[in-house]
Amino acid sequence: MYNKRQKQNLCNGTKMLALKHIAINSFNENIVYLHRNCVAYKMDEIRFLTKVEVHGGAQPLHGFLQIVEDENIVTPDEIGLNTEAFEQLNLPEGTIVTLSLTPPPPSLNSIKRKIAGNILSPAEYNNIVNDIINKRYSNMDVASFLVASGAFMTPQEVLSFTQALIGNNTVNWDNESIVVDHHCLGGVPGNKTDIILTAIVAAYGLPIPKTASHSLSACAGVADTMSVLANVDLTEEEIHEIVSENRGVLSCLRNLEIAPANRTISTVERQIGITQQQHLIAEILAIKVAMGVTNLLIDIPVGPNSRIRNTREAMQIRKLAEYVGDQIGIEVEAVITDGSEPIGNGIGAVLEARDIMKILRNKDDAPQDLREKSLFLAGRILEFDPKLRGGQGYFVAKELLDSGQALEAMNKIIHAQGKAPQPVLGNLVREVIAREEGTVESIDNSRINKIGVLAGAIQNPGAGIDLLKKVGDHVEEGETLFRIHSMSQSEFEYACSMAEGNNGYTIA
Amino acid sequence: MYNKRQKQNLCNGTKMLALKHIAINSFNENIVYLHRNCVAYKMDEIRFLTKVEVHGGAQPLHGFLQIVEDENIVTPDEIGLNTEAFEQLNLPEGTIVTLSLTPPPPSLNSIKRKIAGNILSPAEYNNIVNDIINKRYSNMDVASFLVASGAFMTPQEVLSFTQALIGNNTVNWDNESIVVDHHCLGGVPGNKTDIILTAIVAAYGLPIPKTASHSLSACAGVADTMSVLANVDLTEEEIHEIVSENRGVLSCLRNLEIAPANRTISTVERQIGITQQQHLIAEILAIKVAMGVTNLLIDIPVGPNSRIRNTREAMQIRKLAEYVGDQIGIEVEAVITDGSEPIGNGIGAVLEARDIMKILRNKDDAPQDLREKSLFLAGRILEFDPKLRGGQGYFVAKELLDSGQALEAMNKIIHAQGKAPQPVLGNLVREVIAREEGTVESIDNSRINKIGVLAGAIQNPGAGIDLLKKVGDHVEEGETLFRIHSMSQSEFEYACSMAEGNNGYTIA
Repeated sequence: MYNKRQKQNLCNGTKMLALKHIAINSFNENIVYLHRNCVAYKMDEIRFLTKVEVHGGAQPLHGFLQIVEDENIVTPDEIGLNTEAFEQLNLPEGTIVTLSLTPPPPSLNSIKRKIAGNILSPAEYNNIVNDIINKRYSNMDVASFLVASGAFMTPQEVLSFTQALIGNNTVNWDNESIVVDHHCLGGVPGNKTDIILTAIVAAYGLPIPKTASHSLSACAGVADTMSVLANVDLTEEEIHEIVSENRGVLSCLRNLEIAPANRTISTVERQIGITQQQHLIAEILAIKVAMGVTNLLIDIPVGPNSRIRNTREAMQIRKLAEYVGDQIGIEVEAVITDGSEPIGNGIGAVLEARDIMKILRNKDDAPQDLREKSLFLAGRILEFDPKLRGGQGYFVAKELLDSGQALEAMNKIIHAQGKAPQPVLGNLVREVIAREEGTVESIDNSRINKIGVLAGAIQNPGAGIDLLKKVGDHVEEGETLFRIHSMSQSEFEYACSMAEGNNGYTIA
Repeated sequence: MYNKRQKQNLCNGTKMLALKHIAINSFNENIVYLHRNCVAYKMDEIRFLTKVEVHGGAQPLHGFLQIVEDENIVTPDEIGLNTEAFEQLNLPEGTIVTLSLTPPPPSLNSIKRKIAGNILSPAEYNNIVNDIINKRYSNMDVASFLVASGAFMTPQEVLSFTQALIGNNTVNWDNESIVVDHHCLGGVPGNKTDIILTAIVAAYGLPIPKTASHSLSACAGVADTMSVLANVDLTEEEIHEIVSENRGVLSCLRNLEIAPANRTISTVERQIGITQQQHLIAEILAIKVAMGVTNLLIDIPVGPNSRIRNTREAMQIRKLAEYVGDQIGIEVEAVITDGSEPIGNGIGAVLEARDIMKILRNKDDAPQDLREKSLFLAGRILEFDPKLRGGQGYFVAKELLDSGQALEAMNKIIHAQGKAPQPVLGNLVREVIAREEGTVESIDNSRINKIGVLAGAIQNPGAGIDLLKKVGDHVEEGETLFRIHSMSQSEFEYACSMAEGNNGYTIA
């Protein structure tokens, strides 16, 4: 794979290079730039992407070589590092460093074994994850691992992968006997029960350090919707402080150092557009365990246009999550819920935040389906408390919501996280109307999501869809089914023309 | 996957950028550099590697975005292209171009189908290969495809993949009814029958436009050994001219425009260190068909330390190659040969070239095993000629070799390709001796290869191993088993110390 003579030469450490920051951001890969006439290395003989180690910092830095032919970028005496690598090495420009070639990490052999249909051992998953964390894997290698293991993994392998992902840094909740959380597997627009149940559970007094993500393909992720109300970029210390004061918090993962391989793995998953359920279960459980969660409720919505299409698949996921949870010592309860149509009225961060606050404020026009589902899930979480009598969770949750205690808890959490500068709802509005009289028979989740995405919802919190009719509602010809909100004329037209083609509603 | 508003903005084509060449070589990926404050694009919103299209050239150029924060590299009004992309777009610096985002190619869905265990259609393989050729796949995507399809492919799928790989540019041999070639699946050091049989077949008069590769993991590839004797970087026109004049040629693939997806695929295979047999068969057959070969002999050496370990595996490869060959209209004959020990004496380009010339010159000390195997294979190729009586091939080949006609053909080919400046044999020499008396029972191919690689053989044609004893030979204690040749002191010592540990010989 590499020229031993060069390796020897480099390993001697006689040829030193001056460090330079090349201000290029390569989205998660470390790149090392050397000049074609580099004094330390004969570049003509490099035939393909080569892994190198930079020595001089606290630990060797792993990166991938690219060859430069412009002395304005790097000179033959310099070694350039892109922004990711430069920040990781953490040495000033001009520092003298040495370079060596890195042989391919032995754990790559496990990927070959996986392609050949073998079951990998816990040690193999550990080595793979450690090599990913230490940047010994190129993104190509990570993709190979995800695809090879994505074809099949035994429950034991999912467990091994989960354990490897957890890492060493686990959040410690010394004074808590139970720490709860909730995760929804997604695919249903508007389904932001997370924020409501966090308020209810916090009002009850169980600690719930909820972590959530920004969306990449849905109109809004839980972190996007919460961003409308409060700052979600919290550190581990801030989470600790807010939970000990207010019992609940809702943070995104960006500033957290937990389950460190996760960032690279999820970046590659997005880039190749492939996320397998086994990997998802491992990633979620690893994050929750690393966050110190002891009791986790997983919501698995099932519907013909949801991410999980049938109960057979949902049951497999449930059993797998329960098995892995039992083995790593986190109490997992998985509930299969109705994902056949969007939940709530608003889809998109601002509209979803509006619905949530309506529910917490007990408004008459609050969406009842989202309210009921949140109460159901919150009730299940409350029953993790051994002091609560079985079957009482729902009623306690309802009381906390109806009495305004959940709203109060939410306001405290928002205040503690830092109130967000409230974004406005998109002022370009189109009413999409029923072309015939009848009853709404179905609403296509993925179609509605697509229209919202086209309206700009992923990057633009004020864009989205406001549903006025749900399944079972009677509609007159010409009555409004939903409104499209957008901030920009071009996106607005794009979304409207898509809704004209097929608005996702079936009326019978 | 991307922000539609930005897409709209970009698609308007109102924001133009000035082209700049960023002299960085990224080993086969097109990289597009934009400044963080780019006038055409809000870079803050980009969360991961994004595929973009550059418009302005004959065809849209596909590349991957990286963000720059140094105006010395690119200014907010400029668009930088790395060397690969700049050469492909083929427009002068300063040309005004526009940019748009590229949605993920639909063929990526076929990869998901493959992971889920489906059989892909010929159209799906076609779309995948075309997207690879057009740089719509990142190297990560290519890795995903190779791993997903590497787990299992039906013979029909291997056929579909082969057909897709062939591409549109097929070399035309108008006046020839038969065009022959040979390919060895490798794994046996020193086994350079290719060059000898090319000379014999050319002397007979059958056209043999042999294509070969440089080595990446063996001491020498066929192209490396031929490089010792002649220039091997030929164009399609040169190959045509030399074959019509001399009947034979031996070129590497570098300057050839055939089977264009192959370059990216084999680059990624090397980078992830994974090459599956089905892919290899498809790649070889596609290149040979694109080269206009009608009759192909495949040598499958089998041995405990060879690439193919048992006859069961060899038979699977044979059947697969025959099936695909029959379907695409190339006559494939696959022979299973003994790969249990190195063939010939020399291992490494200069030493192998020495053995080859000894055989062609009918020297007494020429290695008989390499001579006999070359005659056997050449005989099989000659029998592709319908004019030759069955069973006569070997004898005709022997007559052409013994009479000096093969040597004459070889000299003409070398002259036509351009004689190489003969590299010297490494002058650092270590004799590795037998520690006991006995008979050589086995020689470990992979161990011998490793010692040669450490001596510098991959990059250094003069480095290598010269075997003095082969399996079955009697040795006295202290007698020389083989010599290590090297050009550099550090490599020499590295190889010698490895040979001291285990020299690969078993003496009984």
